[in-house]
Amino acid sequence: MPAPTFTLRELGAACGALVEGEGATRIRQIGTLHAASAGTISFLANPKYRHLLATTQASAVILAPEDAVHTTLPRLVTEQPYACYARVAGLLNPPRAFAPGVAPDATVGEGARIAASATLSAGVHVGAGSVVGERVVLLPGAVIGERVLLGDDTRVYSNAVVYDDCVIGPRCIIHAGAVIGADGFGMAEDQGVWIKIPQLGRVVLGADVEVGANTTIDRGALDDTVLEDGVKLDNQIQIAHNCRIGAHTAIAGCVGIAGSTRIGRHCKIGGAAMIIGHLAIADEVVISAGSFVSKSITKPGVYTGVYPLAPHEKWLRSAPHIRQLEELADRVRELEKRLKRNEGS
Amino acid sequence: MPAPTFTLRELGAACGALVEGEGATRIRQIGTLHAASAGTISFLANPKYRHLLATTQASAVILAPEDAVHTTLPRLVTEQPYACYARVAGLLNPPRAFAPGVAPDATVGEGARIAASATLSAGVHVGAGSVVGERVVLLPGAVIGERVLLGDDTRVYSNAVVYDDCVIGPRCIIHAGAVIGADGFGMAEDQGVWIKIPQLGRVVLGADVEVGANTTIDRGALDDTVLEDGVKLDNQIQIAHNCRIGAHTAIAGCVGIAGSTRIGRHCKIGGAAMIIGHLAIADEVVISAGSFVSKSITKPGVYTGVYPLAPHEKWLRSAPHIRQLEELADRVRELEKRLKRNEGS
Amino acid sequence: MPAPTFTLRELGAACGALVEGEGATRIRQIGTLHAASAGTISFLANPKYRHLLATTQASAVILAPEDAVHTTLPRLVTEQPYACYARVAGLLNPPRAFAPGVAPDATVGEGARIAASATLSAGVHVGAGSVVGERVVLLPGAVIGERVLLGDDTRVYSNAVVYDDCVIGPRCIIHAGAVIGADGFGMAEDQGVWIKIPQLGRVVLGADVEVGANTTIDRGALDDTVLEDGVKLDNQIQIAHNCRIGAHTAIAGCVGIAGSTRIGRHCKIGGAAMIIGHLAIADEVVISAGSFVSKSITKPGVYTGVYPLAPHEKWLRSAPHIRQLEELADRVRELEKRLKRNEGS
Repeated sequence: MPAPTFTLRELGAACGALVEGEGATRIRQIGTLHAASAGTISFLANPKYRHLLATTQASAVILAPEDAVHTTLPRLVTEQPYACYARVAGLLNPPRAFAPGVAPDATVGEGARIAASATLSAGVHVGAGSVVGERVVLLPGAVIGERVLLGDDTRVYSNAVVYDDCVIGPRCIIHAGAVIGADGFGMAEDQGVWIKIPQLGRVVLGADVEVGANTTIDRGALDDTVLEDGVKLDNQIQIAHNCRIGAHTAIAGCVGIAGSTRIGRHCKIGGAAMIIGHLAIADEVVISAGSFVSKSITKPGVYTGVYPLAPHEKWLRSAPHIRQLEELADRVRELEKRLKRNEGS
Repeated sequence: MPAPTFTLRELGAACGALVEGEGATRIRQIGTLHAASAGTISFLANPKYRHLLATTQASAVILAPEDAVHTTLPRLVTEQPYACYARVAGLLNPPRAFAPGVAPDATVGEGARIAASATLSAGVHVGAGSVVGERVVLLPGAVIGERVLLGDDTRVYSNAVVYDDCVIGPRCIIHAGAVIGADGFGMAEDQGVWIKIPQLGRVVLGADVEVGANTTIDRGALDDTVLEDGVKLDNQIQIAHNCRIGAHTAIAGCVGIAGSTRIGRHCKIGGAAMIIGHLAIADEVVISAGSFVSKSITKPGVYTGVYPLAPHEKWLRSAPHIRQLEELADRVRELEKRLKRNEGS
Repeated sequence: MPAPTFTLRELGAACGALVEGEGATRIRQIGTLHAASAGTISFLANPKYRHLLATTQASAVILAPEDAVHTTLPRLVTEQPYACYARVAGLLNPPRAFAPGVAPDATVGEGARIAASATLSAGVHVGAGSVVGERVVLLPGAVIGERVLLGDDTRVYSNAVVYDDCVIGPRCIIHAGAVIGADGFGMAEDQGVWIKIPQLGRVVLGADVEVGANTTIDRGALDDTVLEDGVKLDNQIQIAHNCRIGAHTAIAGCVGIAGSTRIGRHCKIGGAAMIIGHLAIADEVVISAGSFVSKSITKPGVYTGVYPLAPHEKWLRSAPHIRQLEELADRVRELEKRLKRNEGS
């Protein structure tokens, strides 16, 4: 299938951007200012690359009004050049199309309803009683449990697994190896032996949720684990049972969120941040990569807690003093007292 | 299949709890004090929720002797209300039953022995020479290598993988995407190039071990990697080659344990803790979530080492001083000397 | 198939080591000095185990010239005993051989080219237009996308997934559950909603790359994500889009590397280290386990940044002072000023 092409005018109309210069310019792909070639459209979102406008080989460019005067190229002018670029990139590179149908070696449990427009690839399994929506694509080896709902236009990549009873909204993307709905880590200790607590809740994903490769989201213990609309998860993330992630929050790779924590809407959680259980994080909170969050956060803002890197020899000399900080503070207080006494005498 | 129901008397007998009030009360499900409804049994393990006893809609409740006087509801009285709750929850919600048999598209290698009571679902593969015990359930897409032993009543969820020669005890639960027995990360450097060292050991899991989704446990280099009875692993954990994890130790999500480390019995390792290789951790050690363990621990207790979170601007001002702690301590010592000299004069 | 055996002379010739003692000694396996038995060869790489030479049951030993005088056992003498051991171990334990051929239930897309010497096991899927090289082994459930190139002698373990268009060099090992080529985490924010940016690059692995179980490597946004020859990745690692990892760099488990970061050649990244995006790390840099890297590193050396562990009570008392370090440093400076003034008076 040849990739689609558009005129600059068509792209501007689709993205709500102002077209300046030749609107009939034909665009077939995106590219960076540095590496673009004829037929491609580039973008300028960071003023430090403005000088590249003079030399780029792109046929058109997306930029902000204040940058538009710096080029004579055909252009889309918008207050949000990066978002416009994302939309244009999506138009030029639509998700791969799949022929509808069920592969001969896919298996479907009793009573499952598969939309005629859906694609079940080789080795896919859909359990009894599940509902697979319109235009859903299940790539080879994906396993959907029983009584699962997969919303329209959702795509599940190879060898991802959705456990029984989970609900996946429309237009979700579940990447390869992700596991949705495994048991939460719930157990009670009885004289040193762990007794498993059945995990009876589900995982419920809203619309437009993306789940990265090998990310895991556990089902709730009694209530559900919920990811609201537009939540975006990168790879290798762990979301424990009964978490609730607010709409349009984005979480970078390797993050872990322990049980029953509630994250607000429009938060940004940096890579490898770790958040303990039973916390509440407000809307619009930004957690820096690598930070450990052990208390609830009630106000929007950026929060950080990471140990600074140093040459190993320097770390060896400074780190042991961390454990003595209370004593050091005490000694400084004592010095202040003594000095004050001396000065007063 | 309708869920089982029990009388309160039956539950009390099964769990060794004292029944007070109407023993014929019929129970069909568990629930929180807050959300319980008729026919459900709830529990009180934390005194701060005691006031909910007055308003709960539960038909019965599990609680400690000192709390029993605060309710007139039919009740199970026990010194371990949370453990009793776990047992009751398990009785009311037994693991899903599967019809025995081998799915038409499951494949079984030469000489493998599959118990007649075992279930091999769609797309499952069991390699040559493996032994699958009584009532074992392998969910769609699970792959069992060659000469693997799967103990009775063990369950392996979809797309989990067990490499050749590993031994999985009875009543284990291996969640989706878990990988047991991949090669340990063993290699030797020779003039800047890495030479792979064959990993000849196995992974051996005892009885009642649970392995979370997408968790990985590497096979040993020469000897085995061993998890003793009752070890519980959450999701996204990495256990490197030749580790030994003592019985009934529980490890929360995202933990990494490097090679040849031995963890004691009845330890609790918090989420995202990282433990380097060749250490020995005593029995009954608790590692707080997010902590980095670089030395052996010889005494039971709680150990912690995490950088405290702060608003980013505050972190920016305080973190650089970490690297100067040695100098700061030197300056305080010098001040103390000078002040002592001055005071002496 | 019986395991191969070699004479000491054959092993010495294959590894470039000097043979001392009886060259006809027949060796069938490796073992530690402590646990070796007749027919095995052991090694001494660490002088602290030298005393074991006197008591080992090994039939031969690999050691350095300065240690050779301490034993009368038949021996391989070399400046690199551990590398020699790795080579001998590999000779005695070659990768498991597989019969070539395509399993009846493997599926192959249109136009894919599968070498006659390749093995496609049960449930494997190879997408349209892909090329599977000579002696490639795909274990049960592995899924290879469309237009993928798999170099000769590469092995992909069960349920690993390679997305469309990726390139895997010769002699690579991809462990179970690894995901290569999922979308990078690229999106633009537009009035609080995330717009996905198509990820058009590939993942390109050089020769002799090993990828651990459940490790993920994302495809590039526009350009490729590249791992050069001989890179070794342990389990549970996340490599984000557009990273470039230099040749022969080794990365231990649970490491995360954010987007567009370039790691040099011959680096060693310790377990659970986290590296933020858009950095450049020089050749021959060593990052200690658990360290967080937030700035580029321009010089070879060992770098560390981890919070020291302490008994929890001690941590509780010292950690809050971290946030006050700026104030503490200010107070020390003030004390120095005052004391100097007093001394001057």
